[in-house]
Amino acid sequence: MDLLKEKILKEGIAVNENILKVDSFLNHQIDTNLMMEIGKNFATYFQAKNIDKVVTIESSGIAPAFTTAHFLGVPLVVFKKQNSSILNQDIWETTVHSFTKNSDYRLTASKKFLKENENILIIDDFLANGEAVLGASRILNAAKCKVQGVGIVIEKSFQPGRCKLENAGFDVYSLARIARLGNGVIEFI
Amino acid sequence: MDLLKEKILKEGIAVNENILKVDSFLNHQIDTNLMMEIGKNFATYFQAKNIDKVVTIESSGIAPAFTTAHFLGVPLVVFKKQNSSILNQDIWETTVHSFTKNSDYRLTASKKFLKENENILIIDDFLANGEAVLGASRILNAAKCKVQGVGIVIEKSFQPGRCKLENAGFDVYSLARIARLGNGVIEFI
Repeated sequence: MDLLKEKILKEGIAVNENILKVDSFLNHQIDTNLMMEIGKNFATYFQAKNIDKVVTIESSGIAPAFTTAHFLGVPLVVFKKQNSSILNQDIWETTVHSFTKNSDYRLTASKKFLKENENILIIDDFLANGEAVLGASRILNAAKCKVQGVGIVIEKSFQPGRCKLENAGFDVYSLARIARLGNGVIEFI
Repeated sequence: MDLLKEKILKEGIAVNENILKVDSFLNHQIDTNLMMEIGKNFATYFQAKNIDKVVTIESSGIAPAFTTAHFLGVPLVVFKKQNSSILNQDIWETTVHSFTKNSDYRLTASKKFLKENENILIIDDFLANGEAVLGASRILNAAKCKVQGVGIVIEKSFQPGRCKLENAGFDVYSLARIARLGNGVIEFI
């Protein structure tokens, strides 16, 4: 997506070889027009998959997932991060390891919003190690939903996330794929 | 806002005298069309205030704040909740007490996204004790921004939030004001 790539080149900061700061438009300050274009793009790509619901993980995924759900005309379900186990029979939960924060968290979702055989599109802002999406897919499997695709705003293609998600059988569509970061350099694939 | 009140009466659950569950359309599963209408409504009400930025607190405030910012044609800035202090000179932070969770958290915002004399509209999903909005306003005061208004999706008018925010001098505009909850009853003002 050219508009996104231009924005990344203009405002993104390669902090080091692993970290790309895009907090001026994606996850702290949010450019709503760009998010609308992102949602349109995802909705167009996944249109044929008869998506019933969009799922994301709080909180940076909410804006792009919201616009995608809007253009697909379906509800958005936000999976929640918790510091500790909920142990409630009305809630699905799984443990996710965050390599960024080097810690675990519990990912949770109310059972009432996930119905058997629903077609789900997972949207997230970043793909690095893929652990958040894999955690969401574990919950969706438990709920007997079908993951029809994974839409990612920015993929760090030098990290193993895409490979792990493809090995799990998912159609992964990323709007910007970063080949290399570092020393002020941002290179796309 | 009639559409919102109808949705609250249809899908909201008064768990007890204090708790209204609206997770089927507001803060877990999200009805994107309703959120667009909510954003239009806030944008219309605050149009004359020359808003430069919309501010919200992650994560349930993001969807209504996003649509409000979109219709006002301004950026959205998401204030972040942290479990512990960041102590970084590039970040504003303040401690907020959550009566709902009976615990404190650190609310943070990057200094670079808040400029002196900017006109700010704060949007949040719920108003109960007002502590989150007051916390956000402390950060905005420190940044020398001007809080031009507070937009709330659902106000629990039997709790002290509105009174505290009005005493602080804010123009508080709530789309649904709840007078009483309990035993399956939801009464609006």
